[in-house]
Amino acid sequence: MLKINQNYLNLKDSYLFSTVARKVSEYTSKNPGKRVIRMGIGDVTLPLCEAVTEALHTAVDEMSGAETFRGYGPEQGYDFLRAAIRDYYARRGVELGEDEVFVSDGAKSDTGNILDIFSRENTVLIPNPVYPVYLDTNIMDGRQIKFMNAGEHNGFLPLPDESLKADIIYLCSPNNPTGAVYDRESLGKWVAFAKANGSIILFDAAYEAFVSDPNLPRSIFEIEGARECAIEFGSLSKTAGFTGLRCGYVVLPRTVKFQEKELGALWLRRQTTKFNGTAYIIQRAAAAVFSPEGQEQTGRQLAYYRENAGIITQALSELGVWHTGGAHSPYVWLKCPGGMSSWDYFDFLLENANVVGTPGAGFGSGGEGYFRLTAFGEKQATIEAMRRVKETFR
Amino acid sequence: MLKINQNYLNLKDSYLFSTVARKVSEYTSKNPGKRVIRMGIGDVTLPLCEAVTEALHTAVDEMSGAETFRGYGPEQGYDFLRAAIRDYYARRGVELGEDEVFVSDGAKSDTGNILDIFSRENTVLIPNPVYPVYLDTNIMDGRQIKFMNAGEHNGFLPLPDESLKADIIYLCSPNNPTGAVYDRESLGKWVAFAKANGSIILFDAAYEAFVSDPNLPRSIFEIEGARECAIEFGSLSKTAGFTGLRCGYVVLPRTVKFQEKELGALWLRRQTTKFNGTAYIIQRAAAAVFSPEGQEQTGRQLAYYRENAGIITQALSELGVWHTGGAHSPYVWLKCPGGMSSWDYFDFLLENANVVGTPGAGFGSGGEGYFRLTAFGEKQATIEAMRRVKETFR
Repeated sequence: MLKINQNYLNLKDSYLFSTVARKVSEYTSKNPGKRVIRMGIGDVTLPLCEAVTEALHTAVDEMSGAETFRGYGPEQGYDFLRAAIRDYYARRGVELGEDEVFVSDGAKSDTGNILDIFSRENTVLIPNPVYPVYLDTNIMDGRQIKFMNAGEHNGFLPLPDESLKADIIYLCSPNNPTGAVYDRESLGKWVAFAKANGSIILFDAAYEAFVSDPNLPRSIFEIEGARECAIEFGSLSKTAGFTGLRCGYVVLPRTVKFQEKELGALWLRRQTTKFNGTAYIIQRAAAAVFSPEGQEQTGRQLAYYRENAGIITQALSELGVWHTGGAHSPYVWLKCPGGMSSWDYFDFLLENANVVGTPGAGFGSGGEGYFRLTAFGEKQATIEAMRRVKETFR
Repeated sequence: MLKINQNYLNLKDSYLFSTVARKVSEYTSKNPGKRVIRMGIGDVTLPLCEAVTEALHTAVDEMSGAETFRGYGPEQGYDFLRAAIRDYYARRGVELGEDEVFVSDGAKSDTGNILDIFSRENTVLIPNPVYPVYLDTNIMDGRQIKFMNAGEHNGFLPLPDESLKADIIYLCSPNNPTGAVYDRESLGKWVAFAKANGSIILFDAAYEAFVSDPNLPRSIFEIEGARECAIEFGSLSKTAGFTGLRCGYVVLPRTVKFQEKELGALWLRRQTTKFNGTAYIIQRAAAAVFSPEGQEQTGRQLAYYRENAGIITQALSELGVWHTGGAHSPYVWLKCPGGMSSWDYFDFLLENANVVGTPGAGFGSGGEGYFRLTAFGEKQATIEAMRRVKETFR
């Protein structure tokens, strides 16, 4: 008799964003006249830039001609894109081999699928609060999970704790949901801790492009020693508006070895067996992002979102509300006023300001009492939203 | 200390097609004057049809406009594509709910990832020979694997055997690599066997579009009772030349329940957690395949490949070489002449006819002594290849 994966029974049923969507939908159907401003889910709103759409049209034309048609591509990604990603890192002083870059359909797939190559016996260390996928994917595998508390006391950037060791350590910087960014010194402590304990760091760099201060690290591989103990997850979703195009990448240096095996070789085996590569046309679009035109055009989009983040943080500062993030991140993380719970503040803002955010508690118990606003909206809507938020403080 | 997934150490290192590619590359570099005809790897060669490229261009334009841009889509796939697939099945008399269709980036991903929802304690039954991914993905999970022998005695279409039970049963029809197709009666026996033993059938229908005889089943859901014990994997790779575009789908009826859980609910949870949906533009391209124009245009491509298959099987019949497949499949499976082993015949054909095929032994020990030729080449090249093959029989 077929047995299901029993670990799935340990997953919580409702998903954060579907609950948010349901509450918003209920509110809007009861209040059809209200103009609700959505600053909840972390999805981009600006359309694809010109360099990207040009590359897509050109690639589609190639696929329609017998001489230029492309069938199966390399599972690890086309050379042209891996070289473009390698060069992108090189411009920040991180030297990678092309065989250390693995192209995929997105960082969400990669952060989930990477667990295939690890034993289920490993213990896992996850910040609390954090992007819920790290937790759920490990529950699915039945791994023992430990949480490290993020809070105002550490700026939502926990540091290594000798009493809290694990085989697999998740770090996300700039952080989702808090927008907080580790500095080099802190990441250096994590690398030293991982090396001392034989741990792997899974470093989620999906928001690295929002870092504007050159003194802050955008890749864990800017830290000495990381090439022995870290895997990095990159994404074009927020950098270039690829949430609907789907392209990401894993950076896995050949020097990352455990039990005498290169993890990169295991990952390549996983991908060649359970994945058939990212669409050629999408890879051409991704390569265009890393071209000079693409960097200039996506840079302008990033600046637009950063300006929105500034509008949000300025309003919160004026109100005296504790917050972090925003400076190097599309996310602003704030303390709910008046000691409200996350979901109470969600309901309060929806009803009184017609503004939708994301309850911090949805990212783990450590997020209770906090709230996330995103900078991905339209500028005038962001200004209007913050005007309404201010009104609620009167 | 991080532990790797030890099951990976049980995987065989070399991959069939990389060995083929290496041998061909060695031969061509030593013999630069020879024109090698490739009938090995199962990749399409005709470019995308007009309906598909038009849909792609239109969707790219949508993505470049602020009003029509699409970010994150539903992980299960857009309604328009799930409805198109539902209707595609309905035209063959198979009634599905839209919530029973799950869009993905390809059947290779799906057949690998579906195993996430099953316990590693399950036993697995795999035909020998068969598409190697079924075996490797289960080795990665450490499941106990049983093989059922396919051979000339059963037309490479094994039937249930009371002495060979398992929790998970793989069937592939039209088969890769043999091209053999199960009839309704045989599939009925498999469904009855699965229901009697509490097994699930994983039915790989990637080549269903090649079936031209309406008396042969193209979906396991044409068989009564399959809605309680089967999951079907569909693909646009061979149907519409999507090997480089990447789109497939899983059909998982809500009536498939084990341990009182709908497997569809577990699969949806897997996909929403470890996958972020297929690119919007690719889904628009896939929907175009199911439009009347798309069906007409891809139908012409299928006819072209079928004609090639006919050229291959006719030549083999004239030579008196035992073979199967080709009639309802792009693959022709033949017995190596003169009792040669698969790899010996590979070398023989490469050297004496400059024709590349795939050694049957690469699909499992049961394929030893057999050889696969594919119909995905250009027509004149196929004619020339078979002329050369005939020459080797002189």
